[in-house]
Amino acid sequence: MSLMKSWVAGANDPSGPFPLNNLPYGVFSPAGGGEARCGVAIGDMILDAAAAEAGGLISVDGGAVCADACWNPLMERGAGAWSAFRTRLQEMLAEGSSDRDAVERHLHPLEDATLHMPFRVAEFTDFYASRNHATNVGTIFRGAENALPPNWLHIPIGYNGRASSVVVSGTDVRRPWGQLKGPDDDAPRFEPCKRFDLELEMGAVVGTPSDGPIDVATADAHIFGYVLLNDWSARDIQAWEYQPLGPFQAKATATTISPWIVTRAALEPFRCDTPEREKPLLDYLREPGPMLYDIDLTVTLAPQGKDATVIARTNYNTMYYSAAQQLTHHTTAGSPMRTGDLLGSGTISGPEKDQRGALLELTWGGKEPITLDSGETRTFLEDGDTLTLLGQARGDGFTIGFGRCAGTLLPALDDPFKR
Amino acid sequence: MSLMKSWVAGANDPSGPFPLNNLPYGVFSPAGGGEARCGVAIGDMILDAAAAEAGGLISVDGGAVCADACWNPLMERGAGAWSAFRTRLQEMLAEGSSDRDAVERHLHPLEDATLHMPFRVAEFTDFYASRNHATNVGTIFRGAENALPPNWLHIPIGYNGRASSVVVSGTDVRRPWGQLKGPDDDAPRFEPCKRFDLELEMGAVVGTPSDGPIDVATADAHIFGYVLLNDWSARDIQAWEYQPLGPFQAKATATTISPWIVTRAALEPFRCDTPEREKPLLDYLREPGPMLYDIDLTVTLAPQGKDATVIARTNYNTMYYSAAQQLTHHTTAGSPMRTGDLLGSGTISGPEKDQRGALLELTWGGKEPITLDSGETRTFLEDGDTLTLLGQARGDGFTIGFGRCAGTLLPALDDPFKR
Repeated sequence: MSLMKSWVAGANDPSGPFPLNNLPYGVFSPAGGGEARCGVAIGDMILDAAAAEAGGLISVDGGAVCADACWNPLMERGAGAWSAFRTRLQEMLAEGSSDRDAVERHLHPLEDATLHMPFRVAEFTDFYASRNHATNVGTIFRGAENALPPNWLHIPIGYNGRASSVVVSGTDVRRPWGQLKGPDDDAPRFEPCKRFDLELEMGAVVGTPSDGPIDVATADAHIFGYVLLNDWSARDIQAWEYQPLGPFQAKATATTISPWIVTRAALEPFRCDTPEREKPLLDYLREPGPMLYDIDLTVTLAPQGKDATVIARTNYNTMYYSAAQQLTHHTTAGSPMRTGDLLGSGTISGPEKDQRGALLELTWGGKEPITLDSGETRTFLEDGDTLTLLGQARGDGFTIGFGRCAGTLLPALDDPFKR
Repeated sequence: MSLMKSWVAGANDPSGPFPLNNLPYGVFSPAGGGEARCGVAIGDMILDAAAAEAGGLISVDGGAVCADACWNPLMERGAGAWSAFRTRLQEMLAEGSSDRDAVERHLHPLEDATLHMPFRVAEFTDFYASRNHATNVGTIFRGAENALPPNWLHIPIGYNGRASSVVVSGTDVRRPWGQLKGPDDDAPRFEPCKRFDLELEMGAVVGTPSDGPIDVATADAHIFGYVLLNDWSARDIQAWEYQPLGPFQAKATATTISPWIVTRAALEPFRCDTPEREKPLLDYLREPGPMLYDIDLTVTLAPQGKDATVIARTNYNTMYYSAAQQLTHHTTAGSPMRTGDLLGSGTISGPEKDQRGALLELTWGGKEPITLDSGETRTFLEDGDTLTLLGQARGDGFTIGFGRCAGTLLPALDDPFKR
């Protein structure tokens, strides 16, 4: 596949994030305010999809899908509707389209728009699917001999997170308080978190709901698209709370996602296989085809008022389990999955030291500070730090981007229980 | 407080579950079908609250709260609206009420009604707040020396569950498949669960939403009411999957709740203190008053076609942490709480052997089968078993009930991935 040409300004830039090949879905308010509405990124512009639909330019059988300021109505329609909708968008926005005059007045400059949550998150699940990450974390906490839990090569391990704390890129994140207890302390204290961290992840967005178990091929077809995802993590809260029932408040502060859902259709050219299995997977987890994606990922950290430093570069193709495998496993015991369920991949870490997707690993548990371009060092995050995730799938003469997935860490409140 | 007299049949029975003192909220379809609608249990009848509201008999400032076939609209209005609504219901249904003629035609026999989910569950969190339960389970899995995790006396430990699998009493539950691996097995197998269990719990239903940390007194005021809750659990799936990130598919099959939300107001006379603290709690968890409730709880097991046997009797007042403490802890790291969030107490076990709220404890990990009245024995649940939870708060001449919280276990599917 090569670049699909569009009449929209900036959409034919081979390194731009939003060519006609992409068409990611977001929710925006145009410059000068105005209500939030469904939009599609194209070049330097956003197509007001709600207005285009209301004006009769796009229609999906069975009623409006863009009227709600979130994409859930389209998501729940299923793969047939997604395909028809996307085909029509590409027709309208393609070079030489006869719809250009009618469509052009529904375009708004991306630069001036405010971006909102692109979908209503039904429930949020976080997985643990990078072998490099699981090995590094396991080595830090349990030593190299016990690094990988015995179930790890058999189960796409996951735990349920908190949907209410998922926020869109640009939302500030407040350093949390929590129970902290060092190994030598007599008792825990209630204090601001000292070891606040990021986690570089991809998020799979479930479109089609299911009532019971679904196999891997079906699971793949239920996925509407992908977002970048930063699962902010309080390492010191986690260390004290997580036995025996898993992380809870350590992961409850915020999870930031990119403002654009990149569809599965846009990522199709970038499919790739999961790595060789060290141990054979049980049948229900076997993939009928390539279900990971080749997406370059970058993390930058910018101290307050200073330039950003790239602190990690890796690729989603390093994961051991795909989102389709995770979704299938999620349904094994009978749990219904719903439109808007969000599945975090787990921290994505490559094999090299500068490919690790969390400060916990980059600084080896805080023992090896990293140095930023400004000369400052970091073990964990400091107040005012802005973390930005970027993702790029690089095609032949075109690029698929997700937009920035960014958040700035604000200082802890003086007293969280003051009202 | 004594029995409040009503003109409705059956409401003045001192041992009946639904006197005027109670007025729990449910959703029902009357006999002969008809749409699901909001209802209030009173004696042997259900008041069609949607019809009463539509007919002008009840109104809460700011619009309809009973029109949606779920109680979330009233729940999100907050404690002032709850109180006004309840006061008006009591006025209409009290002995000698001048509204009797107008109200009477909105009553439907409870016996013939179909009961539905009383509210939309936003997110489901399950806690672990019974010291007897935590000690028993810890002893079974880790030995008596390491029974209680070190954080247990400091943190109301919880983990996020799956809201989509919460079902109303009467819904059949299908035995799940999952990854099982015994300690001596080389590799896991994908098979039907062999150790399927119940968990006797109370569920606290969050009414008023919150954006950030809330103290214990405030948390208590955010709770709309309580339901009985059976958190069905697959012990063999849990044993293999739960390290290091907690239970996942072991808890994903179903969580059954009672059809009636008993309001905090109805339970007010039954407030009691949490037990003496072995270690002092951090300030943010200290209760300003009694926040547990004295509610007798019973679990029965009925094999298919046979009579039910009482397998456990205990009381909610045995818990170490209250729902208000759990809700406060849930907000410490900044997670917003929403209308419809459901907080399971954790399995409720008393100190005695026949007071344990799960077969895992009652049969000591399956080693000591219990004998039913029919002569059959059980370690874990068998296909066709019906489990029923009952709850009763016993006042001076009146009783507050929750209705049955029941589910029948269906056999596993032949192949969950057959479509």
